[in-house]
Amino acid sequence: MTIANQEADCGCFLSAWLWFNKLVKKLMFKVVDTASNAKKLGQEDPRRIVHSLKVGLAITLVSLFYYFEPKFDYEGFGVSAMWAVLTVVVVFEFSVGATLGRAINRGIATFLGGSLAVGAHRLACFAGSKTLEPIALGIFLFSIAAIVTYLRFLPKLKARYDYGVLIFILTFSLVSVSGYHDKEVLEIAHTRLSTILIGSATALVVCIFICPVWAGEELHVKISSNLEKLGSFLEVFGAEYLNTARGAASEQKASDLQGYKSVLNSKSSEEVLANFAKWEPRHGKFRYRHPWAQYLEVSGIARDCGYRIHALNGYLNYKTQIEQEIRTRIQEPCMKVSTECGHVLKELALAMKTMTYPLTIKVHIENAKLAAENLKSLLQANSSWEEIIFSEIIPIATVASLLIETVSYTIKMAESFDQLATIARFKKTNRFAPARIRTGSWKRKRVIPEQNTEIAHHHVIAVE
Amino acid sequence: MTIANQEADCGCFLSAWLWFNKLVKKLMFKVVDTASNAKKLGQEDPRRIVHSLKVGLAITLVSLFYYFEPKFDYEGFGVSAMWAVLTVVVVFEFSVGATLGRAINRGIATFLGGSLAVGAHRLACFAGSKTLEPIALGIFLFSIAAIVTYLRFLPKLKARYDYGVLIFILTFSLVSVSGYHDKEVLEIAHTRLSTILIGSATALVVCIFICPVWAGEELHVKISSNLEKLGSFLEVFGAEYLNTARGAASEQKASDLQGYKSVLNSKSSEEVLANFAKWEPRHGKFRYRHPWAQYLEVSGIARDCGYRIHALNGYLNYKTQIEQEIRTRIQEPCMKVSTECGHVLKELALAMKTMTYPLTIKVHIENAKLAAENLKSLLQANSSWEEIIFSEIIPIATVASLLIETVSYTIKMAESFDQLATIARFKKTNRFAPARIRTGSWKRKRVIPEQNTEIAHHHVIAVE
Repeated sequence: MTIANQEADCGCFLSAWLWFNKLVKKLMFKVVDTASNAKKLGQEDPRRIVHSLKVGLAITLVSLFYYFEPKFDYEGFGVSAMWAVLTVVVVFEFSVGATLGRAINRGIATFLGGSLAVGAHRLACFAGSKTLEPIALGIFLFSIAAIVTYLRFLPKLKARYDYGVLIFILTFSLVSVSGYHDKEVLEIAHTRLSTILIGSATALVVCIFICPVWAGEELHVKISSNLEKLGSFLEVFGAEYLNTARGAASEQKASDLQGYKSVLNSKSSEEVLANFAKWEPRHGKFRYRHPWAQYLEVSGIARDCGYRIHALNGYLNYKTQIEQEIRTRIQEPCMKVSTECGHVLKELALAMKTMTYPLTIKVHIENAKLAAENLKSLLQANSSWEEIIFSEIIPIATVASLLIETVSYTIKMAESFDQLATIARFKKTNRFAPARIRTGSWKRKRVIPEQNTEIAHHHVIAVE
Repeated sequence: MTIANQEADCGCFLSAWLWFNKLVKKLMFKVVDTASNAKKLGQEDPRRIVHSLKVGLAITLVSLFYYFEPKFDYEGFGVSAMWAVLTVVVVFEFSVGATLGRAINRGIATFLGGSLAVGAHRLACFAGSKTLEPIALGIFLFSIAAIVTYLRFLPKLKARYDYGVLIFILTFSLVSVSGYHDKEVLEIAHTRLSTILIGSATALVVCIFICPVWAGEELHVKISSNLEKLGSFLEVFGAEYLNTARGAASEQKASDLQGYKSVLNSKSSEEVLANFAKWEPRHGKFRYRHPWAQYLEVSGIARDCGYRIHALNGYLNYKTQIEQEIRTRIQEPCMKVSTECGHVLKELALAMKTMTYPLTIKVHIENAKLAAENLKSLLQANSSWEEIIFSEIIPIATVASLLIETVSYTIKMAESFDQLATIARFKKTNRFAPARIRTGSWKRKRVIPEQNTEIAHHHVIAVE
């Protein structure tokens, strides 16, 4: 019996030990995993580390400021200090635009909310009696909070001023509530405003003058890299689908072929960046009113082009189904269309990056259009396809029509880029180069409805 | 001269008057425009009005609470009142999940941040001298703020706990700063925590018990309506593209055909809703750990299907290019595929809405697969297309292959829905109905690589 008991005890202890061991190992694994993730984040973008140090610096600075300046009213913890520290923590964001937007929103909203609350308090004072005054204040509070909360649903207000509206409600409520006990409301509003201004100023100075991250530049780089990803796909696709290139550099190619996927879902992050960028002052190559909306337009067309590329990507893994004969015949124009469009997109990406007009783009567009016409006429020529089974042509026909669509999107993108270059005053590096794209003539031609049904596809591409 | 002067004066006055008039008109227009927009917002979704009233009520309640309970320490405005009011304003969100998430984040982060700050303060006290203590506190403040700000970049932490981490930094900073002047740090941390809990509780009670808006239900309804939009498109597309239905109810059809577009960019908003939904307790038909991630999977497949539908939509306006002969021949299978897929999607949407297993879905899927096979063999039959010019077939071939792809996505969606129904324990309304989809057999068949190249398209659809 005792031996059995001892064994049971041992078993109990052992299982507890094993459980504990497992838990520790699991915890250790999680900590190591998080640490390695954190390290990766820093390696991916070292600005993240700099940002963290900047936030630490700004908070310490604003706290030291209050330590060395004891003339501010310190009674009751942070009536002043608190708001400045709070402002730094809440306002400091990764990019200058986001920080500026928050700081300006917070400053103006505090001013307006405080003023209105002082006004409401004065108005409530007219009620005279001690019981009526808080009731009047309560009614004001309820109605202002409800109305302004409702206004937050307005899409235009939400996009740029949502934070400001929230702070407006906050300040109005805080100053109103203090009015219940008949404090000096004006002084409270004034203190709150001045401390918030000190906090915002500290955050802004640190954010702008120590390794600033500009939202506008982020957007600029992001859209340029989107164009480059699409271009890389198209450059590789022709060779890869038609299986002419073999062997070397296949890993590089695989990443070229998958890179486009991040373009498909980039809409919301780009809109956020554009909203931030609108707050930013002149910096580097960008003016104050740089046409960020036009960037979004270029990017929208790129995304539409990306959907077609997504469809093209579906045919990459089925290259073995195409017979050698068809492949040989269709190879040349398909490759031509794909690589020329790829060239155009890559050159647009480079031109955007360097903020110049693209140099050789017109030649490539002409080549792409010619190749697309070739491809179409090849598909339209009845005789040359007689001996081939129809079912084999369907995937090729789809690829061809997707490529033809891609050409028309490329042209649209070039047009949109041209508008951007004009508004943003990109540099013309060489005045003899055929830099400007003749937008007008294309547009005119594409609007004319074609009468004959020879042109099979719905995107009519006019060859000049 | 005087007359000329008078005239000049008159002109000046007139132009000023005109300018002022214009300004007033512009302002009036803007006000009227905003008001009509605001009215529309309320008509679109009356819950927005209710939400605004709820926010007003919660703020007034928490402020009244402090008015009638003067036992709280009121010195220096809002040492306590302020935090509770602030918490209500900042925590109260449109849906219960978002509010709960913020409240829980805020509560736990305040507790942790406050505890750590008290610990840091005690540790700094060991330094002994009056000059060393603030320096030690400053170093703590800088390093904690920097490290925790850096951790905010971790994607997992950012998705659900970003607000909590921010509040952690905030509380730690506030309590630390108050330590500079040797206040009773523990008391401050305690007051802050208790007032934040009161504010959170007020916000939560109002949010949950007065007309609650559940993020989970929003997501449920949204994804169900996404499926319905895709289904409506497919149901109408067959008839519309092949131009068999004419005249009546064309406006309804136009909206059916454009509705799918909102599906393409719904990813981020759905992810946000799913994150909120994870915070929500059991409500209505939804358990606490309802499989929200599976909803996102269904929606992801729906979006992939949506990209194909976006491509199909491009062919809608080019129906006149198809010759009567081709149309007559291809009409039947195309219509069949399109309408059957539409039926399946609409039934999935209905089943999701009512949280039951779909009843007749299997029949429709079989029909769609058969029709797709028909379509394929029709396209593969070499003989029947001999007299037709090739270029005319390209758009039809593309439409046909897109429709065939749609069938395979529909099947994937049905499989994914079946998994969702199993995990979420949807009701089986009729045990004799062929409710469950035989997932296994499809999967097995689709994995087997087909040897013959007869099946032209890359999505091999197995007919059971």
